[in-house]
Amino acid sequence: MTGAIDAPCHETAIRVYYEDTDTGGIVYYANYLKYAERARSELLRDLGFENSAILAQKGVAIAVRRVTADYMKPARLDDLLTVATRVRAVHGATVEMEQVVRCDGADLVRMAVTLACINTVGRPVRLPPEVRGALIEFAGDAAGTGTDG
Amino acid sequence: MTGAIDAPCHETAIRVYYEDTDTGGIVYYANYLKYAERARSELLRDLGFENSAILAQKGVAIAVRRVTADYMKPARLDDLLTVATRVRAVHGATVEMEQVVRCDGADLVRMAVTLACINTVGRPVRLPPEVRGALIEFAGDAAGTGTDG
Amino acid sequence: MTGAIDAPCHETAIRVYYEDTDTGGIVYYANYLKYAERARSELLRDLGFENSAILAQKGVAIAVRRVTADYMKPARLDDLLTVATRVRAVHGATVEMEQVVRCDGADLVRMAVTLACINTVGRPVRLPPEVRGALIEFAGDAAGTGTDG
Amino acid sequence: MTGAIDAPCHETAIRVYYEDTDTGGIVYYANYLKYAERARSELLRDLGFENSAILAQKGVAIAVRRVTADYMKPARLDDLLTVATRVRAVHGATVEMEQVVRCDGADLVRMAVTLACINTVGRPVRLPPEVRGALIEFAGDAAGTGTDG
Repeated sequence: MTGAIDAPCHETAIRVYYEDTDTGGIVYYANYLKYAERARSELLRDLGFENSAILAQKGVAIAVRRVTADYMKPARLDDLLTVATRVRAVHGATVEMEQVVRCDGADLVRMAVTLACINTVGRPVRLPPEVRGALIEFAGDAAGTGTDG
Repeated sequence: MTGAIDAPCHETAIRVYYEDTDTGGIVYYANYLKYAERARSELLRDLGFENSAILAQKGVAIAVRRVTADYMKPARLDDLLTVATRVRAVHGATVEMEQVVRCDGADLVRMAVTLACINTVGRPVRLPPEVRGALIEFAGDAAGTGTDG
Repeated sequence: MTGAIDAPCHETAIRVYYEDTDTGGIVYYANYLKYAERARSELLRDLGFENSAILAQKGVAIAVRRVTADYMKPARLDDLLTVATRVRAVHGATVEMEQVVRCDGADLVRMAVTLACINTVGRPVRLPPEVRGALIEFAGDAAGTGTDG
Repeated sequence: MTGAIDAPCHETAIRVYYEDTDTGGIVYYANYLKYAERARSELLRDLGFENSAILAQKGVAIAVRRVTADYMKPARLDDLLTVATRVRAVHGATVEMEQVVRCDGADLVRMAVTLACINTVGRPVRLPPEVRGALIEFAGDAAGTGTDG
């Protein structure tokens, strides 16, 4: 179910501002999760979907069920980062992505993210079929289409 | 309409964490507005109200219409701050507060805040009467009870 | 000293993400100050300066001494905003800017910002001459060149 | 090296404010990492250390090298949360902690965190001996004292 190393990759550029840094002189560790969420939103947008419309029309939100982040090198003020996002697996109710924050060719933070769909009272529901289909199409051969999740 | 200098004062303690600071070694300027909002929420809570209940039961949110912040001295990591909040005027649809962030007896940031009530589509509405009444009672002689807003 | 209405205007595009919103369904009020700071950083960058280099090479940071924000209409998830920045006055140690956050042609938040230069221990110092010169040049006739500040 | 289930537990109370929530009506996922960092700072403080002093006196910061977060139930505006922190292992250069965010007795988010010490240019260095000793003492039998990192 793990995608090939050359799975299609979506890239989002992120500039580091004062708001992102802390007194240690580096980007505060929780903020990379913000960057990752921006990148996932941009991937969805490029596929034709917006979180706000999904929430308003379907009554569901795509939420993070699990994230693992490995911090290898710090980003600093004014750095121009790239978040590379790959869809690793699409199940019935969950999606697995791999996201890497890079700067000048070096990997700074590597994240594995499991997304799940929840309704307005927080209960897990299936992914909207058109979103699920678009993610499978984007992932290509890299994503399985399990029936679990 | 401006309250007396000795208007009743509500105090909230705030600890500065890494998340609040920036690479300049000081608390990022927007974060003092977070501190001020926490302090206003604690004032409401001490008066018997919670934002979540007001939003759920009345369908309204108390939003900021205007804020002025004067930054005099910076706060730093691990500082233990106090936010002193005074209600300066209570109108029909707006409330004026003065909030000062202090550390070790020194004023760091002084804020003047005008609050207004909005409904779920963002339109201005009157303050819930019980909230308005509690704020007037808290403010004592310091707050006028104008009918404008 | 107030600039003409047609002072040169710098524009920065900002997308609203989940991180920016709150449970009221709108952008949290302190986050507009983040947007404004990003826009000021982009103005500086377009003029050839970066905050990180100014901090590293000159030992000074450009900090906010005073901000006034008027909240007129809320922004929401996925909105594409523009921050329009004008330099209103350049003094010896301070700079006055006007910043407006817009969406679909409507003004959402109007800010007046006074910036000051501080050194690494927080003391006010004069603006680096090349930064000051570039801001005056950008502002054109709109900015005075007072010797106070 | 994994601590016993009844390893000593440090608890920090966290109130949810507007700033923490998003338009989905729940706490934004990255903000639980802020809560966890506040709790680790409070654990250190209770052991007699402050991040600011460690940074100023030793020139080192305790940074997150790896975090895994499992999101089980969402927190909402005005919730009063508890972050329970256990030290699972203390090595020469890294510390492993388990942190659980709870509300009304239910686990909302479970985190496994690996901390490492870095100097001001971001290079890994050994933990200050007194901090390491205090963490081992706090952890009691739960923490190994490996010499690796």
